[in-house]
Amino acid sequence: MTDVLKVAPLEADAFRPYGEVIAAGNARETLSINEGHARRYHDLAPLDMMEGGGRPVLSLFLSRPKSWPLELALMERHPLGSQVFLPRSERPYLVVVAPPGPFRREALRAFLARGVGVSYRRGTWHHYSLALGEESAFWVIDREGPGENCDEIVLDPPMRVDFGNLLP
Amino acid sequence: MTDVLKVAPLEADAFRPYGEVIAAGNARETLSINEGHARRYHDLAPLDMMEGGGRPVLSLFLSRPKSWPLELALMERHPLGSQVFLPRSERPYLVVVAPPGPFRREALRAFLARGVGVSYRRGTWHHYSLALGEESAFWVIDREGPGENCDEIVLDPPMRVDFGNLLP
Repeated sequence: MTDVLKVAPLEADAFRPYGEVIAAGNARETLSINEGHARRYHDLAPLDMMEGGGRPVLSLFLSRPKSWPLELALMERHPLGSQVFLPRSERPYLVVVAPPGPFRREALRAFLARGVGVSYRRGTWHHYSLALGEESAFWVIDREGPGENCDEIVLDPPMRVDFGNLLP
Repeated sequence: MTDVLKVAPLEADAFRPYGEVIAAGNARETLSINEGHARRYHDLAPLDMMEGGGRPVLSLFLSRPKSWPLELALMERHPLGSQVFLPRSERPYLVVVAPPGPFRREALRAFLARGVGVSYRRGTWHHYSLALGEESAFWVIDREGPGENCDEIVLDPPMRVDFGNLLP
């Protein structure tokens, strides 16, 4: 059994099974707008939040780092919609996911994000976003509406995280 | 005729006729989540983007400052949906609005935003968001869908802006 999860840099291709990396560089369409004073990087992630009478809701999360060394004990998934995290700062944060479907501990993956957002696809298992070092703020877009939209699973034993040389 | 527009600090009460100031301090509901490691400031602005078959779209804007001193020549409104700007940084930006309905030059108002987002209500006249000093990035949520969702009006003569002592 894998008891230590190695962290990789967050890249769009590697993250595709789980959702989208939200960044200008991943836009399929770029437009010059505002009399040439702005570039619009258009439609960076689907907002899949209308299932079963749902609606998208905008919130702000202020996240405190967990104690160090990191141990992960809880994963969740949202069966009725995607969930988008847009960082307020350039501070790094940790994204931990496993594919939709029955949870498999050995399928856990960890990615270090910095200056980009992420969208967890509907049903993707994920840890709550993990601020590193300092309290960090995220704009969050997710689904509100009828139905039970959060499944949780406990990691027993907890999973340790190995950042290698990715953090200073 | 008012030819110089005085800038006021952006405050939720003063902005209420035009939309929402998006900030933790304006949340009607705050929740402790993520095993106590985060605060969720919930539902900070309505995402009014589903009218007439519309859907919310997430984009990134990179905005370059206009030349100085500022002269404003173009206002716009979106008759089919609200539009949300969430700054990536703490840099100040200028928000210029007039109430929904027939455009009235004398009803223009200017607000200096810093570290908070804004939502322009459906139909609110607004200038495109004005980065100040440096290029600034904004996460933007707005409506995509059938129908014509942008009216423009030219300010002739252009409107000058007086920041008073609000900028260093």
